[in-house]
Amino acid sequence: MGTGADLVLQRLLAGDVDVCFANPGTSEMHFVAALDANPRMRAVLCLFEGVATGAADGFARIAGRPAATLLHLGPGLANGLANLHNARRAHTPVVNVVGDHATYHAEFDAPLESDIEALATWPEGLVYRPHSPAALTAAVDGALAGAIGPPGRVATVILPADYSWGPADSDGSPVVDAPPETGAGGIGAPAAAELLGDYGEHTVLLLGGAATTAAGLTAAARVAAATGARALVETFPARLARGRGIPAIERLAYLAEQAEQQLAGATQIILVGTRAPVAFFAYPGRASGLVPTGAQVHTLDPADLAPLAEHLGAPAAPAPDAAPRDLPEGPLTVANWAEVIGALLPENAIISDEANTSGVLIPAATAASPPHDVLTLTGGAIGQGLPVAVGAAIAAPDRPVVALQADGSALYTISALWTMAREQLDITVVILNNHAYAILQMELGRVGATAGERARSLLDLSRPDIDFASIAAGFGVPATRAATAEELAEQFAAAVAEPGPHLIDAAVAPWG
Amino acid sequence: MGTGADLVLQRLLAGDVDVCFANPGTSEMHFVAALDANPRMRAVLCLFEGVATGAADGFARIAGRPAATLLHLGPGLANGLANLHNARRAHTPVVNVVGDHATYHAEFDAPLESDIEALATWPEGLVYRPHSPAALTAAVDGALAGAIGPPGRVATVILPADYSWGPADSDGSPVVDAPPETGAGGIGAPAAAELLGDYGEHTVLLLGGAATTAAGLTAAARVAAATGARALVETFPARLARGRGIPAIERLAYLAEQAEQQLAGATQIILVGTRAPVAFFAYPGRASGLVPTGAQVHTLDPADLAPLAEHLGAPAAPAPDAAPRDLPEGPLTVANWAEVIGALLPENAIISDEANTSGVLIPAATAASPPHDVLTLTGGAIGQGLPVAVGAAIAAPDRPVVALQADGSALYTISALWTMAREQLDITVVILNNHAYAILQMELGRVGATAGERARSLLDLSRPDIDFASIAAGFGVPATRAATAEELAEQFAAAVAEPGPHLIDAAVAPWG
Repeated sequence: MGTGADLVLQRLLAGDVDVCFANPGTSEMHFVAALDANPRMRAVLCLFEGVATGAADGFARIAGRPAATLLHLGPGLANGLANLHNARRAHTPVVNVVGDHATYHAEFDAPLESDIEALATWPEGLVYRPHSPAALTAAVDGALAGAIGPPGRVATVILPADYSWGPADSDGSPVVDAPPETGAGGIGAPAAAELLGDYGEHTVLLLGGAATTAAGLTAAARVAAATGARALVETFPARLARGRGIPAIERLAYLAEQAEQQLAGATQIILVGTRAPVAFFAYPGRASGLVPTGAQVHTLDPADLAPLAEHLGAPAAPAPDAAPRDLPEGPLTVANWAEVIGALLPENAIISDEANTSGVLIPAATAASPPHDVLTLTGGAIGQGLPVAVGAAIAAPDRPVVALQADGSALYTISALWTMAREQLDITVVILNNHAYAILQMELGRVGATAGERARSLLDLSRPDIDFASIAAGFGVPATRAATAEELAEQFAAAVAEPGPHLIDAAVAPWG
Repeated sequence: MGTGADLVLQRLLAGDVDVCFANPGTSEMHFVAALDANPRMRAVLCLFEGVATGAADGFARIAGRPAATLLHLGPGLANGLANLHNARRAHTPVVNVVGDHATYHAEFDAPLESDIEALATWPEGLVYRPHSPAALTAAVDGALAGAIGPPGRVATVILPADYSWGPADSDGSPVVDAPPETGAGGIGAPAAAELLGDYGEHTVLLLGGAATTAAGLTAAARVAAATGARALVETFPARLARGRGIPAIERLAYLAEQAEQQLAGATQIILVGTRAPVAFFAYPGRASGLVPTGAQVHTLDPADLAPLAEHLGAPAAPAPDAAPRDLPEGPLTVANWAEVIGALLPENAIISDEANTSGVLIPAATAASPPHDVLTLTGGAIGQGLPVAVGAAIAAPDRPVVALQADGSALYTISALWTMAREQLDITVVILNNHAYAILQMELGRVGATAGERARSLLDLSRPDIDFASIAAGFGVPATRAATAEELAEQFAAAVAEPGPHLIDAAVAPWG
């Protein structure tokens, strides 16, 4: 008979969870010790919990199945919450294993004691606390099933130290049943065809979730071309297929005033794998909901997109074709750095996109690049980009990962660089270093505030400038600095050509 | 009439809160803009919320009054929670201002929407959400009073964006009444004298909170000397006076087996500003409570310590005296690095101590150093040391701050270095770089686990080694590396002699 920690590991493995992003403490030591007897579990050490949770999100977005995290009591879970919030918005399955004090220790209110359940439920999460060693199997199995859904959820197993070090038995049975058949929701293809036949040119198809695969986008583009409807992708999709051969469907803009333009005149909106569009923030005098007044809202299951295209007899839709492109020259700007990435993006890449304001032109620049996947900042909690790149690289070791990363956001989870170095992950990080919270410089005006010097100093990341190449070297990641498009091109090409992690600190001039 | 944000700033200032550690987002832009019209508020930009909350804790421990934090919605508060947990355990007053979406925006469940109250209450915190602009004054005033207590608490004002940008009026009245008289608790000096007269040699005086000032420690040492009682300081005091002229009262050990030895034979324990001692973690076969079986537990108000000493007619107690000390030589060890600090600690210093296993010999080494204050890791949530140093330095610009910082723990809030550089804080950071989670290497055996190579790799911070000097340079903090005691002495002396922040990456061999 093994320990409870052994059993937890075995149940995770039986449920096909074989990667654990870990930042353990004393209460997790038996789980750590049990890794030796369960070598199929790959434990990846992260130096901050937000790296672990973001990596689990990135892993599942690419692998299509959950990873585990290993976190230390309430404070450890607290540090991981922001990226669990992003996972919640991405509908990503994540299984947290949070070690707790021994059950009999709780009443003593030791220094690290806290209400773990309150934190675990916060990201609309499911919580499984076993109340006996015999309940460990049900707790882990329940968390696995709960995480997988659908929809994907954050599920947390609270593992008391005494259950972890005490004896426990596994019956060795398989864990997770196939997800239940979720009979197609929404209006179905024939009804959608009828709506589109009547009002095609006044219809918006808004795509998210399972509709943003290459197949989903292709079917949506066919529907749009055949009916005159506008197809749009939600603002921050969890995983978006892009590149040559895949219709480059525009995303709904982050700026509410632009999004209103994109949706203007629509009398019906068909939601496919997403929800009704809303403004990211409220602004004085501006509406929060983005559905045009009086428009009807319908839902269509993503699985019904292809049947709908067939039903309509829609012809193939155009998709971007590769064209030889000249590399840009001159000092780096918001425009030309994106062109460099677009021209040199390797085959089959995964982009972790937290470029924020600097990345506005990336979609246009990469539309005809080789086919790739884009993982975006789903929940708005910054500090996602580097961890998600870690998880994606572990999920797909044969695919190059490119992290396009704003400077300010990078610093929330910067120690992700160390995990890239330890695991020798094939990640090229491009830091868009404009020495500012540039998005806040923009938002300041949009919310109607005016600011003098003291206010502006809070949006400024110079004084001193941050040298990301020096920081990366400190974490063991080879790094270079680029100030011109030529330097970025040379360094990016070299970085993607060589295995292992690299960082380029790109001095991109801010907008305006 | 100003905006609601103006009003919030004015009420904070009226309550003598004039420092705000800020990591703002779009919903906080009007608060940021209002800083220009309220120049008495010093806004300190932090690049991660855990830096802001830890700095507020460090500020209040030294200043004796709260600072504010400015945080961005639920995910921003989430990132600050771990250091709020430490503040909770230190009984530190902290006033969080957490921006929220406009009130009418909440129903749209925009990407950053979440249950802010659930997070704000987690560190046993008080929450103040105004339900109209007219309620802003009461919310801020309530949070100030709630934070100050006593005891000090974490109090959070949730500030909706529309209240922040809308008009609001202040009546300009002073905010915070003097804390209520809290009539002395506990048994009082005469009763304590009687207990000590009967059983002095079987009594432990356990000191925390207000009892760990120089005056409190001096009185406690007199009582101990006069009665044969043992005086001990709680394991992790919020602020502890130390150095020449101040009795060097031993702290209760972190290791439960050592703490049991310190308390063995006691038939009564008198708690002075602290609570009954408990083991930090549970260990198989070891008790969680540390009060010896059958011992009586009493409480005494810290204000009664000096009267008790008078009542007993206790003579002055011995305190460490300065003695000339030779600087050690040779490669850095757990012993000799502490001797260097003890010999060279500047006058009137503040030590932020998160040295963990490497710091075990610091108390002995600094007992006869110039008088100083020590701020310890009260709640066990690592990543406190650098932020607390930031706050302490801002609270006491004329005092040198020394951050003794374990390598692994440093990385949770490493961007604190940037704030040190921007504000040119007089902080000397000494990183104890043993390339390991050394405490977990120790705890692994203590909890009865055995580990092979895979388990041990999760406790190891080499592969690659982390170069803190390079990271510090990236954040704008001048840095050096020390491998010998001579190098550490030279670099430490130079760092404390020069204003502004410095970092020394000290290669300290681990125990054993």
